[in-house]
Amino acid sequence: MGSDSDLRYMIPAVDVLNDFGVPNETRFVSAHRTPDWMHEYAADAEQRGLLAIIAGAGGSAHLQGMSASETILPVVGVAVEPNPDPMNAAFASEVRMPADGGPLATMGKNEAGATNAGLHVVRFLSHVFPELKQMIRDRMETKAAEVLAKDARVVEIGPHAYLQEQKAKSKA
Amino acid sequence: MGSDSDLRYMIPAVDVLNDFGVPNETRFVSAHRTPDWMHEYAADAEQRGLLAIIAGAGGSAHLQGMSASETILPVVGVAVEPNPDPMNAAFASEVRMPADGGPLATMGKNEAGATNAGLHVVRFLSHVFPELKQMIRDRMETKAAEVLAKDARVVEIGPHAYLQEQKAKSKA
Amino acid sequence: MGSDSDLRYMIPAVDVLNDFGVPNETRFVSAHRTPDWMHEYAADAEQRGLLAIIAGAGGSAHLQGMSASETILPVVGVAVEPNPDPMNAAFASEVRMPADGGPLATMGKNEAGATNAGLHVVRFLSHVFPELKQMIRDRMETKAAEVLAKDARVVEIGPHAYLQEQKAKSKA
Amino acid sequence: MGSDSDLRYMIPAVDVLNDFGVPNETRFVSAHRTPDWMHEYAADAEQRGLLAIIAGAGGSAHLQGMSASETILPVVGVAVEPNPDPMNAAFASEVRMPADGGPLATMGKNEAGATNAGLHVVRFLSHVFPELKQMIRDRMETKAAEVLAKDARVVEIGPHAYLQEQKAKSKA
Amino acid sequence: MGSDSDLRYMIPAVDVLNDFGVPNETRFVSAHRTPDWMHEYAADAEQRGLLAIIAGAGGSAHLQGMSASETILPVVGVAVEPNPDPMNAAFASEVRMPADGGPLATMGKNEAGATNAGLHVVRFLSHVFPELKQMIRDRMETKAAEVLAKDARVVEIGPHAYLQEQKAKSKA
Amino acid sequence: MGSDSDLRYMIPAVDVLNDFGVPNETRFVSAHRTPDWMHEYAADAEQRGLLAIIAGAGGSAHLQGMSASETILPVVGVAVEPNPDPMNAAFASEVRMPADGGPLATMGKNEAGATNAGLHVVRFLSHVFPELKQMIRDRMETKAAEVLAKDARVVEIGPHAYLQEQKAKSKA
Amino acid sequence: MGSDSDLRYMIPAVDVLNDFGVPNETRFVSAHRTPDWMHEYAADAEQRGLLAIIAGAGGSAHLQGMSASETILPVVGVAVEPNPDPMNAAFASEVRMPADGGPLATMGKNEAGATNAGLHVVRFLSHVFPELKQMIRDRMETKAAEVLAKDARVVEIGPHAYLQEQKAKSKA
Amino acid sequence: MGSDSDLRYMIPAVDVLNDFGVPNETRFVSAHRTPDWMHEYAADAEQRGLLAIIAGAGGSAHLQGMSASETILPVVGVAVEPNPDPMNAAFASEVRMPADGGPLATMGKNEAGATNAGLHVVRFLSHVFPELKQMIRDRMETKAAEVLAKDARVVEIGPHAYLQEQKAKSKA
Repeated sequence: MGSDSDLRYMIPAVDVLNDFGVPNETRFVSAHRTPDWMHEYAADAEQRGLLAIIAGAGGSAHLQGMSASETILPVVGVAVEPNPDPMNAAFASEVRMPADGGPLATMGKNEAGATNAGLHVVRFLSHVFPELKQMIRDRMETKAAEVLAKDARVVEIGPHAYLQEQKAKSKA
Repeated sequence: MGSDSDLRYMIPAVDVLNDFGVPNETRFVSAHRTPDWMHEYAADAEQRGLLAIIAGAGGSAHLQGMSASETILPVVGVAVEPNPDPMNAAFASEVRMPADGGPLATMGKNEAGATNAGLHVVRFLSHVFPELKQMIRDRMETKAAEVLAKDARVVEIGPHAYLQEQKAKSKA
Repeated sequence: MGSDSDLRYMIPAVDVLNDFGVPNETRFVSAHRTPDWMHEYAADAEQRGLLAIIAGAGGSAHLQGMSASETILPVVGVAVEPNPDPMNAAFASEVRMPADGGPLATMGKNEAGATNAGLHVVRFLSHVFPELKQMIRDRMETKAAEVLAKDARVVEIGPHAYLQEQKAKSKA
Repeated sequence: MGSDSDLRYMIPAVDVLNDFGVPNETRFVSAHRTPDWMHEYAADAEQRGLLAIIAGAGGSAHLQGMSASETILPVVGVAVEPNPDPMNAAFASEVRMPADGGPLATMGKNEAGATNAGLHVVRFLSHVFPELKQMIRDRMETKAAEVLAKDARVVEIGPHAYLQEQKAKSKA
Repeated sequence: MGSDSDLRYMIPAVDVLNDFGVPNETRFVSAHRTPDWMHEYAADAEQRGLLAIIAGAGGSAHLQGMSASETILPVVGVAVEPNPDPMNAAFASEVRMPADGGPLATMGKNEAGATNAGLHVVRFLSHVFPELKQMIRDRMETKAAEVLAKDARVVEIGPHAYLQEQKAKSKA
Repeated sequence: MGSDSDLRYMIPAVDVLNDFGVPNETRFVSAHRTPDWMHEYAADAEQRGLLAIIAGAGGSAHLQGMSASETILPVVGVAVEPNPDPMNAAFASEVRMPADGGPLATMGKNEAGATNAGLHVVRFLSHVFPELKQMIRDRMETKAAEVLAKDARVVEIGPHAYLQEQKAKSKA
Repeated sequence: MGSDSDLRYMIPAVDVLNDFGVPNETRFVSAHRTPDWMHEYAADAEQRGLLAIIAGAGGSAHLQGMSASETILPVVGVAVEPNPDPMNAAFASEVRMPADGGPLATMGKNEAGATNAGLHVVRFLSHVFPELKQMIRDRMETKAAEVLAKDARVVEIGPHAYLQEQKAKSKA
Repeated sequence: MGSDSDLRYMIPAVDVLNDFGVPNETRFVSAHRTPDWMHEYAADAEQRGLLAIIAGAGGSAHLQGMSASETILPVVGVAVEPNPDPMNAAFASEVRMPADGGPLATMGKNEAGATNAGLHVVRFLSHVFPELKQMIRDRMETKAAEVLAKDARVVEIGPHAYLQEQKAKSKA
């Protein structure tokens, strides 16, 4: 992450990796305040045994793309944008990388992006650690079951009652 | 790809995979005209032994996200946008995927995006096929050397002469 | 709807259909978490006797377009966007559908969009159930009368007094 | 249509309706140059026996929304935007209609939007003229078959040969 | 105005006209809920002796442009956009009017736009009522003097003290 | 105008004023290259007997707003934007003027904006020169008649023949 | 600054200059309410011994560009945009200045932009006052050290504990 | 510059510096293909005696911001965007730099931006080399004189003749 204020939006990536038992480290690396440290971190990452880097930053968001340019590891970017940015700066900075200039893989923003960044890495790692495959399937089925349960409930009690129930829960 | 008109923008992904000796297949799968076929393709992909899917489409660009939702393989999306779209529709469709709803990894658009999509997959596959690592390093060094050679040339002859030389080449 | 958090923004569609005595069902169908269920729902809809589908979802909003691709029923989409999205993702995803790839009819967003989605369906159904025609006319006249009453009031008491009255009401 | 320069982008709507044997008329009605005529056209449409209005216009694109406000018929809007508009004016004008203020159904832009506008209307009319249902299914199957044929071809000859074949065809 | 919720943003236009002694009326006219009334209001405006129309509405904002198309009076539009709209719909709807299709003059949004709409009308009316000219000059000088007084104060006490003073005032 | 390259987009304003017999002058005044001249022009305009200023410029487009701040005459702005600007800079610069900081009236862009700028001024001037009123009505009727004639023609020969006729004309 | 409400967003520029011991003055100059004063301020700035102007304003933001056009001093612009503007008006107004029409240097917005505006000026002034060079280096090292300290802490206690610590601090 | 294809858009910066007799060098430095070289170039720049860096790049445009983070010299950025980018990526990447994270000064795009980048640097350097001051004044006066000459000509022959003359020149 580029800043420690990004942590609360990026923690779901940590949680996903932990859920799947994938060891991971959390580091603060600022492209603009610690360019030397970014350089060193990206350059050493592969030798240190890392298999992928998930980079999250907002604003100009150079951390994501620069990291992709300074390592041979796959780099997955998450835009940290807690306050919607009319310029979409972080996304624009991520998805306009030149060919052969750091293949950055951009996920969504904030918590959703961080969750999916974790899952994207897990999917690829399942080719190295095949036991992850069934875990991915299970997780997808669990999420589907949650939707189906909600659907069964709204069919059972109707939309207005469901809405009331939902409001009651959110107050509780 | 969603349509055969996308092929010319996506072919660099094929070329990158071929450059690295990674076997690959090219298929047309339209989310909106062949939803059953999309469903079948994504659902069978893993059992058929595919390791990743690179999905390219333009406009509403549902192919990328839906594919990610229907397989446990990593899915990498490329926006095909030959005529700049003031709505940025394909990108918007790619980077707003919900958490746990198909972890789609978005690259840039058109040829640059396709090239980087290939490279992103290759980087991940290098954990399965370690011989890819040196090939990645070599390619990055070649690209760097091209820039350095141009830099040496512009230092040697100066910017105006360089520009003339460039124009002469593009005419030739 | 793609998620039960969409319900509060979509309920006006239910209300409109109920106002006109049009039977309807409310279901949760997530394009990304339950693609099989979406597929099944859309494919069976016509045989189950449904006459139209109103699909509401936010973010990447693939539910709307995919539903249109998987049924022969008319599909009307509503963008659920409670927090304004600088990318306009849901709209972009809706209005860039390819020709012959699912004719999705996009309404506005949130409650206004849901209300109008209900009304659009009712207008079409009035060709099947002609008694709806007069009901539509009556509703339009009621809405017009509300504006005219406000106009008469502001003419009567003047703009500053009207504003005071309005503030007083909103406090009460 | 708002202007006769819109005709070439809207003609696919005529073609779709003709393909399905749905009688239709093509008229020029400018919201800004002939507001009286627009008013008259929309007001009389239902009595003249029309079942739906497909309205296409660009720029401020008031024709679509105003038509929806002045009739009880369903109105389907198409944005005519041959030169991409960085303001997305026609779409913005269409999808911000107020609740109960003319339920306008917005399709995509230009030819694709016009095609889908025709198809959306046909889908709704299939509840009045059931013979349209099989025709819709047939058309969807034809479109799917086209994609599958292209897919079979690219599998057969490979992507580079396919691209060559495609270029050769476009020259011929 | 299109709706009575627009009134609080439009009242500065009333205030400006009152400040200059220009008689004015405040009316509610909805393009989408009362198209007939809009038509009647615009058509009769000139004969009733009005000299200009200031039209304020948000969302699709057709009131402004349609009014300009239905009268020979000058029409000045104000976008009512209390919650910033990422689509800039009201502005887009205003500034894409076709040539010779209602010359709509667009001011800024909300209170600032309403104030300036009033002032724009006053400037033009000063050719009919020359006594307005000196009043315009006086108002501009008053506004300038306010800035100069603030400038003198910040020079006197320095920026940090000024900021403290400002915060103290806003609390009081 | 800010630059002589703006002239071809602004000339319709001259033409409209000439059509109505309103005397006018065409001047080049650059906000950024000749700020003193802009200042002088705006400051002297009223004393020289001008009744309004139509200011056209592109890019940062400060000419429009600064002119409105430096005169008591009504100022009407036209955005000159021959190549669509994804930033919408000229419009943004025009419609964000502060309250009481130069009431700038913004029209559309290029030729359409220039035409309507001329018409807006003419409408206001019709209160000073009442003979303009009938001329405005006549022009509006002429424009309406053109649309109605096209409508009659498309009804007569049908849309496909009309399109052929249109293409034939544009070739001739 | 264009208005005294801009002061709280611009004060970091004052603070940076003070940190480096660079004398500075804070003035209110409104492009639209005090165009004469803006003209006078910019024209006299160089003779009064100023070395650079940092101009901050929001909305149409003409102050920045006009200042650059009316002096030979370097002008650095800061967009004051406390509420995100979907039109990005201030930036658009700043970065579309014509060639040779006032070379305006645009920094970011609000406090971050003001801080960097101060630093940009200090960097240039370091060629006139060489003692600033070491001060710049020291400040950059301090900022880097802050990031490294946070990184060491998150490594020490892990991301979840860090987040807890962070929340505890923000409450305290 | 990030790539040699940027040269034709950046050459006006070279020309401006040459016009003022300011020695300069033109180099190719790619943030994404040669991150080490970028690092080295920025780090050594001050010791090599450079006084400022003008960095031009398009797309993700990290070169500008990263350069500012890796040197104590002032850095001036130019967005190279020959084909308008609906995402405004290069600008977004430039103007969202964090406080104290590399004070990047952003100019306009392409040739106009490059010209103004040169002029901005020259203005600052005029504090080191005072003879530049008169040269700046002269250049501004020359540019103003060009506008005034055009204004005199359009007054002399009228707008339509001027337009004819302009068209004749552009053909010659």
